[in-house]
Amino acid sequence: MTKYNFYAGPAILPKEVMAEASKNALELGDSGLSILEMSHRSKEVAAILDEAKSNVYELFDISPEKYDVLFLQGGASSQFFMSAMNFLGTEESAGYVDTGAWSTKAFKEASAFGKATTLAASKDKNYNYIPKGYEIPSDLKYLHITSNNTIFGTQYKDFPETTVPLVCDMSSDIFSRPLDFSKFGLIYAGAQKNLGPAGVVLVILDKEFAAKQSRDVPTMLDYQTHVKKDSAFNTPPVFPIYVSMLTMRWLKKNGGLAAMATRNTEKANLIYSEIDRNSLFYGTAATEDRSDMNVCFLLHDEAKTDAFLADCAAANIIGVKGHRSVGGFRASIYNAMPKEGVQTLVDVMKSFESKHV
Amino acid sequence: MTKYNFYAGPAILPKEVMAEASKNALELGDSGLSILEMSHRSKEVAAILDEAKSNVYELFDISPEKYDVLFLQGGASSQFFMSAMNFLGTEESAGYVDTGAWSTKAFKEASAFGKATTLAASKDKNYNYIPKGYEIPSDLKYLHITSNNTIFGTQYKDFPETTVPLVCDMSSDIFSRPLDFSKFGLIYAGAQKNLGPAGVVLVILDKEFAAKQSRDVPTMLDYQTHVKKDSAFNTPPVFPIYVSMLTMRWLKKNGGLAAMATRNTEKANLIYSEIDRNSLFYGTAATEDRSDMNVCFLLHDEAKTDAFLADCAAANIIGVKGHRSVGGFRASIYNAMPKEGVQTLVDVMKSFESKHV
Repeated sequence: MTKYNFYAGPAILPKEVMAEASKNALELGDSGLSILEMSHRSKEVAAILDEAKSNVYELFDISPEKYDVLFLQGGASSQFFMSAMNFLGTEESAGYVDTGAWSTKAFKEASAFGKATTLAASKDKNYNYIPKGYEIPSDLKYLHITSNNTIFGTQYKDFPETTVPLVCDMSSDIFSRPLDFSKFGLIYAGAQKNLGPAGVVLVILDKEFAAKQSRDVPTMLDYQTHVKKDSAFNTPPVFPIYVSMLTMRWLKKNGGLAAMATRNTEKANLIYSEIDRNSLFYGTAATEDRSDMNVCFLLHDEAKTDAFLADCAAANIIGVKGHRSVGGFRASIYNAMPKEGVQTLVDVMKSFESKHV
Repeated sequence: MTKYNFYAGPAILPKEVMAEASKNALELGDSGLSILEMSHRSKEVAAILDEAKSNVYELFDISPEKYDVLFLQGGASSQFFMSAMNFLGTEESAGYVDTGAWSTKAFKEASAFGKATTLAASKDKNYNYIPKGYEIPSDLKYLHITSNNTIFGTQYKDFPETTVPLVCDMSSDIFSRPLDFSKFGLIYAGAQKNLGPAGVVLVILDKEFAAKQSRDVPTMLDYQTHVKKDSAFNTPPVFPIYVSMLTMRWLKKNGGLAAMATRNTEKANLIYSEIDRNSLFYGTAATEDRSDMNVCFLLHDEAKTDAFLADCAAANIIGVKGHRSVGGFRASIYNAMPKEGVQTLVDVMKSFESKHV
């Protein structure tokens, strides 16, 4: 029985990735061993770690001469403080844009290390839009943004125009579209939305930006520790990296990031059109900032919430209950969500309307 | 074809654990979803995280009133600095016992935070013994030890007699024997030796010890952040925790830690007896400190090394090449290594002797 997984994260992965991961959790190739019990120094696992890294370079079309690619632990939540601990000196300034829970947390952690300022925020409208047109001082060490907000369903369509390097939490829309890397000093992304299972965070670091480190930090918190040892200074989270590698293989096989962007826009249009058409529902995010990854919508009549969730469940739709900060519904339609999954949800919305209007 | 996995870590796990993990990576029970794509807030995953925690309490026979059990990321390598960052104030003192690479690293990280002193070391004999009889000042905040050294094959059979709380890196022998918990303030253990795949570190924290926190630290580095949110402040590494939970189920089914200790001693005796008997080999660790987990041994004639490794490979034995710091061979015989695996290695040693003497 096919279930359509709309969870915000940990989230849907391609079916063939999960099948392959399952097979190799029993035995990796014909090694006689499960990938779960293999040394990270074995030739088989070393090849997996290598391919994971090279897939990142290839998918984003970036060069190892200019960027370091790391697979670390601790999630984006650890990158909130680690980015500032490494790159925001006590007397240095950084700008933060507050687009909801995650950027609020990033700002809080940075404030302990240097002069962090919130340059713009969309809190006034329950974070339903991406701030624009604010001033960005040119002497900032970096500008921190969250490219996509899972809770409020907003997403940067264009990144800020500035010469200040961007530090970007890209956890929930990494690999969903091509990127102009020249704007970014540091990108980090917890795997468990669009890349792999929970337990690994991808970091892409511009070498020029990285050279301007602001203080000495404990060995494990120093990006350069992991750069020097190719993410294997200590035992890396082998299985989460392995599954992420498989997802990147799948991305390459399916046309790479340009194809993903096209597909994601199609899927997003499908459901946003229905939200706008259907007399029972309305979207929460400002139209121009609507996320292609997390689609948030409400019923005009909240009393019908449980009835709609029951119809979703009957159609094998899982994980569409909205976050408590917004209420209603949230459909997370990451790369791995097939178009028919979105169509199934749209069909349920249509039939719900026909029953209740 | 059965292979005997003697890797030091990531390392062998029980066959039935890997089979169950593989199955649920395809579909968790009859949920219609893989465990790899399920929200950590789903009822299924919440139940797994709960069981992982309660298994730790049950196996060690400790109480949730007295101890907090956490599943964190970043490995023991992150605990090296995190333990000191939380519990060693600038003016406070801690003692470290240097039994090799891991304790050396722990000491280095702690030195950045407070007055860390190496009270004893076995470096004079390439770490082939556990120091004993040194003085432990009674005003130390804690005494840090490494219960088992994977590289040099040494293990504490008795823990130091002191009223100072022990902070212990137990990565490579956790769950190998019952423990008197009253001595410990903090125990940490990377999963990838005796518990699960790489990607999670188990932390057991005495509440009384934890109450004496020394400084404010970033949110993710504060043990209390994770205590308050039951290891789910941020997205936990679901799959590594899940496999660890399965291993703990297996431990319970197989008689718990007392039964493991008996079995581990039997296995260790089997191979150490052969090392002592066989005219070609000799052990590197002091007899009374020999590890029941990692058995290090050398050939009197180093020139025969490749020939012995070839015989091991022919008998489906994997991962017995020694660490470069010691050379020779290392057989890691964690809980999941069956007695017949050790017997197979012993048989190879015997037949090697018959061919070469």
